Amino acid sequence: MTSLSWSIVAPGVWRAIVGTPEALTPLAVSGATPRVEALAALGAADFPFAPDAIAAEVVSDKQVIRLPLAEEEELFGLGLQFMRVNQRGRTRYLRVNSDPKQDTGETHAPVPFYVSSRGYGVLVNTARIPTFYCGSTVRKDSAHPPVLRDRGTDPNWQATPTSDLVEVVVPAPGVEVYVFAGPSTLEAVRRYNLFCGGGTLPPRWGLGFWHRTMLTANADEVLAEARAYRERGYPCDVIGLEPGWHSKSYPCTYEWRADRYPDPAGFVQTLRDEGFRVNLWENPYVSPDARIYPALESSSGSHTVWGGLVPDYTQPEARAALMQQHEADHVAIGVSGYKLDECDGSELTGASWIFPPQTTFPSGVDGEQMRQVFGLLFQRMTADIFHQRDQRTYGLVRAGNAGSVSLPYVLYSDLYDHRQFVRALCNSGFSGLLWTPELRHGDTAEEWVRRMQVVCLSPMAMLNAWASGSKPWDFPEVEPIVRACIELRMRLQPYLYAAFARYAFDGTPPFRAMALEETLRPASTAPVSEVDLTIDAYGPSATSAIDDQFLVGDSLLVAPLFTGERSRSVWLPAGDWFDFHTGERFGGGGMISITGDLDKLPIFVRDGGIIPLMPALAHSPRAGESVPLEVRHYGNAPGRLELFDDDGETFAYERGSYQWRTLEVTRADTGYTGSISPVPDGWLSAYGEVSWQWWGKG
Amino acid sequence: MTSLSWSIVAPGVWRAIVGTPEALTPLAVSGATPRVEALAALGAADFPFAPDAIAAEVVSDKQVIRLPLAEEEELFGLGLQFMRVNQRGRTRYLRVNSDPKQDTGETHAPVPFYVSSRGYGVLVNTARIPTFYCGSTVRKDSAHPPVLRDRGTDPNWQATPTSDLVEVVVPAPGVEVYVFAGPSTLEAVRRYNLFCGGGTLPPRWGLGFWHRTMLTANADEVLAEARAYRERGYPCDVIGLEPGWHSKSYPCTYEWRADRYPDPAGFVQTLRDEGFRVNLWENPYVSPDARIYPALESSSGSHTVWGGLVPDYTQPEARAALMQQHEADHVAIGVSGYKLDECDGSELTGASWIFPPQTTFPSGVDGEQMRQVFGLLFQRMTADIFHQRDQRTYGLVRAGNAGSVSLPYVLYSDLYDHRQFVRALCNSGFSGLLWTPELRHGDTAEEWVRRMQVVCLSPMAMLNAWASGSKPWDFPEVEPIVRACIELRMRLQPYLYAAFARYAFDGTPPFRAMALEETLRPASTAPVSEVDLTIDAYGPSATSAIDDQFLVGDSLLVAPLFTGERSRSVWLPAGDWFDFHTGERFGGGGMISITGDLDKLPIFVRDGGIIPLMPALAHSPRAGESVPLEVRHYGNAPGRLELFDDDGETFAYERGSYQWRTLEVTRADTGYTGSISPVPDGWLSAYGEVSWQWWGKG
Repeated sequence: MTSLSWSIVAPGVWRAIVGTPEALTPLAVSGATPRVEALAALGAADFPFAPDAIAAEVVSDKQVIRLPLAEEEELFGLGLQFMRVNQRGRTRYLRVNSDPKQDTGETHAPVPFYVSSRGYGVLVNTARIPTFYCGSTVRKDSAHPPVLRDRGTDPNWQATPTSDLVEVVVPAPGVEVYVFAGPSTLEAVRRYNLFCGGGTLPPRWGLGFWHRTMLTANADEVLAEARAYRERGYPCDVIGLEPGWHSKSYPCTYEWRADRYPDPAGFVQTLRDEGFRVNLWENPYVSPDARIYPALESSSGSHTVWGGLVPDYTQPEARAALMQQHEADHVAIGVSGYKLDECDGSELTGASWIFPPQTTFPSGVDGEQMRQVFGLLFQRMTADIFHQRDQRTYGLVRAGNAGSVSLPYVLYSDLYDHRQFVRALCNSGFSGLLWTPELRHGDTAEEWVRRMQVVCLSPMAMLNAWASGSKPWDFPEVEPIVRACIELRMRLQPYLYAAFARYAFDGTPPFRAMALEETLRPASTAPVSEVDLTIDAYGPSATSAIDDQFLVGDSLLVAPLFTGERSRSVWLPAGDWFDFHTGERFGGGGMISITGDLDKLPIFVRDGGIIPLMPALAHSPRAGESVPLEVRHYGNAPGRLELFDDDGETFAYERGSYQWRTLEVTRADTGYTGSISPVPDGWLSAYGEVSWQWWGKG
Repeated sequence: MTSLSWSIVAPGVWRAIVGTPEALTPLAVSGATPRVEALAALGAADFPFAPDAIAAEVVSDKQVIRLPLAEEEELFGLGLQFMRVNQRGRTRYLRVNSDPKQDTGETHAPVPFYVSSRGYGVLVNTARIPTFYCGSTVRKDSAHPPVLRDRGTDPNWQATPTSDLVEVVVPAPGVEVYVFAGPSTLEAVRRYNLFCGGGTLPPRWGLGFWHRTMLTANADEVLAEARAYRERGYPCDVIGLEPGWHSKSYPCTYEWRADRYPDPAGFVQTLRDEGFRVNLWENPYVSPDARIYPALESSSGSHTVWGGLVPDYTQPEARAALMQQHEADHVAIGVSGYKLDECDGSELTGASWIFPPQTTFPSGVDGEQMRQVFGLLFQRMTADIFHQRDQRTYGLVRAGNAGSVSLPYVLYSDLYDHRQFVRALCNSGFSGLLWTPELRHGDTAEEWVRRMQVVCLSPMAMLNAWASGSKPWDFPEVEPIVRACIELRMRLQPYLYAAFARYAFDGTPPFRAMALEETLRPASTAPVSEVDLTIDAYGPSATSAIDDQFLVGDSLLVAPLFTGERSRSVWLPAGDWFDFHTGERFGGGGMISITGDLDKLPIFVRDGGIIPLMPALAHSPRAGESVPLEVRHYGNAPGRLELFDDDGETFAYERGSYQWRTLEVTRADTGYTGSISPVPDGWLSAYGEVSWQWWGKG
């Protein structure tokens, strides 16, 4: 064992080199530039371990890194985990995987970064498949061996004894390890996010409602489907086309199918004129019928997928061919972004729709590495097309890794368990990820509503009707409820946009778990529950964390009800909380039980919370347009919220063209006063008249 | 790519060396000696591929072996697979795994051997984790590229295009590859089994009924539980003790707990006198309270499990310490065998009850290798204790690998899906494995019966009541049915014993899938079924095989009904088949539909089948005892069965002390005549008077 040697690379960020790292890493692929000034604003911090506490050795050509772990620590993150929030005691095999139905750690976005409840973070920057043993192994030479218990007599016997170490195993000749200081868990995450370039800032339209049309829809059918939203007065900003828009798909040509879309430019322009952006589905596999096939043939891998080429995106000529074709055929005619499918296949499904690890690529990269960063490469390439045009995009992708933070993509999955979807939303904020618990279909009106409520409080509010052909109004008996969900989404846009701006500027995730903030999480509990051994021979896992409620921005706490539920428990942190819909006050600092009608998503507002709402427009305001604000203040504490004000569509904000508009509420004997900070002369603000509302007073 | 160079190592068996193989392999660990004479009796055969058809290359330090695959081929085997029979089109990751709930290939016994419907077998003899791409990958340079289909228009689009190759990836500096000739699939399996030493031959008592008592039972409780079988007149041969017999368990001492078992020798002898053998549960992890702990400390791995040592079984001193202690404390006082638990942990459960791959051992073996062959090492060590005493054993184990064939262990699992249990029984016969679909509990009387029926037609008929405390008579409303199941098990013992003897002498698996014999499997069908894309985005797998019926010996076809079923389809191969219970005739060569009453397990007998039955004794005959036989002949064809006749308990048969007793039925105009071949003077036969019964005639 050799202790690692650490050098500081940014305020509160240290790096150590183990062995000889490979060139291809997630951070390198993401192309992120650390936001050094924002990191500096978080302040200096001490290295969160003893200097020689982290050590490494090589076992059978693999790097094994060992980190200390205290008895009470909880560990969070490691990507888009569906099965649990607290990873303490678990082994996480971080392979990218499209079908993560077991609690192995595999997922669409297996980010090799975790944060501790003790307030630090660890990133292992590898494009290989690392395994994190999060206190799931015990060494014979441990200084803190677990208590021995006899299973035959001791009811406290546990399948996972308490371990004093994290082991990370990387099958590579070397690897970079980063440590992020806190001092809080949230600050460790913020440092990670800022080190990865800060969060992505979606265009405003990206925060509107999205609808994806059916696999084989043609232009007329898509237009009719879009116009139905307008006719019924439902907000909608984005129409997504699924595989059938390609002349051939699975593998893809990336060319419009002439019989379904005889005039692509006119089609996109018509939708644009009516307030819709167009998003195009694609996957990475290139059809022999594609015009760009010959240009890609020599810069592609040894294996095919569905008979299509696997481009080597690390090769400049492959990127150039794809980017030129995409820009000319899609972006130049007004397409707003992409849905990048099937960049995350795995052996788990057993099917062949991914290139295997033994694939060889012209760059010398092998299939194992390429798979781990394939989604990231795909995101980077398409994001670059838009960035070069000074145009923001927002889209969907099924795979990510470390460094996804600054890329304008939201993860989605073919899984559909609603509790897992909410848990993933909680977990996304630990790892610099965005996730949509997309609505595809509902077996009942109740399920339809419950899923719609959650997706409308997520990074992307989307109905994906690619196979179902569903519409929001499919269940007439709940149509008013569904309409209200989508309208609430639209009304919350200023609040959501402000939360995303913080993500970009100071690294605070817009959607996050209770466990991310020490003041918001309950003390750790480790009950050994009653268990039926005939069903689970090893008993329950000993630790847990809240996985069914989440924060949106700083002031909203969302506690969804799931299909079949009429009531639920909600953890309210200390202080007063107020029902978003009624202003009713709830005392915090413990678990409360709530009953929930179908028409209400339970949302609680923090005391002093300021929630700016805009009208439920048919679509988001365009650059240069302004909207009036209804600003709600909840409770009795003073409040403050920084609204972000820019054109909402370009990268002008990166060149300094933006304003923070401070919404502030003060309290005097005479009552509450709300104010908004002014803008400089000549600044065209996205926000017009402000009216104040006072909720939950007294 | 380099073509492999093959040398013949036994009749119909070839070996090629790729790179520099490691010393630790499953075949080496199993210690098996090929049965060269029996292999020779199968005849010479041609190498089943073109001489240079199989090639290898190194990709990122892994060995990649490529084998040709014809369009219509089906592939079977690869260990104890629970999810499918035909592995064609799937990627199989052959990691040992205690919790194989997804269709990845992982399993308790991931045997790296497959057989083809074209009649050959391939073994990759590695203790690393190989991945088999069974026609799930397609190379860009393929000579037979798949047909391209557009998913947007072609209903025949498939998630898995037809591939022309098998790729095997082994993360090792080298590996041995074996090819087994057929010409039939069954003959390829037989060659593999014989090359691995031939099948194990259980003692006769091993084929009786087994009962495992509760975790914390003491000697009096166990005796009471055993005697209840006698009082109620249920057959029972083996009583299993679960962890509580140890003075400490999880980790284990392997020493009797004095307050529960004050007189172990007397306890075992009392049971023996009443016709019961005792089987002891253990796992590999050694408690600090064990007397042998100091002797093992320096020959154990770097990590602990439940605070216990992980012995390095490859070290002679570790084996010697454990074997001496086990012999003195258990075997010498009459213990008949072991149940070897938890030698198969995995990252899948996420818990820590396995040593990780980065464990280092004094021998230089690492944790990854040790895990793959841990169950095999454990089997070999305990089997050797008994073999040295000229005493046959039969027990349970949760992990195996290639070379398990000759070891006296039956696999079991904590899984409990009944269809998967039956599928595993089908699959076990492709890979030289034995498997028990053990009965643990039933939610209803129907489930209780359906599970009991199947386990009584399996390699080990066992009620494992370790957590449930169940007894066979728990559901009074079905007690006569359950009793009849267990009695049938006992009555079938001569037939089962004959089937196991064939396994030992000519390699034919006693339990096997329809697909193992070309004459018994239906022609391959590859329908693209209707599928709900909202549930499964990639549609169904294209190929299938019969996975819910199996053969026992040569003449019995078992087609279980599952809980909730009142009828089912059964594939009957060509020829007449007869209901075992009634003699009713069914025409074969297609699917038939049967209705099933709860009291009958559907069993069909091949035309001409000879089924010798003995009385449903309380326990199996001891060495030197003989039983009368009721021999049933079914149908109209002549028949022949070789009964195996030995002492049933020792290895005397390996020294030539056995007889084949030929049961033969001939037909003349005057009717049917049955005969049994005589034994030499002085031979003490296990079989006495023979009475003949004629079923399904006319």
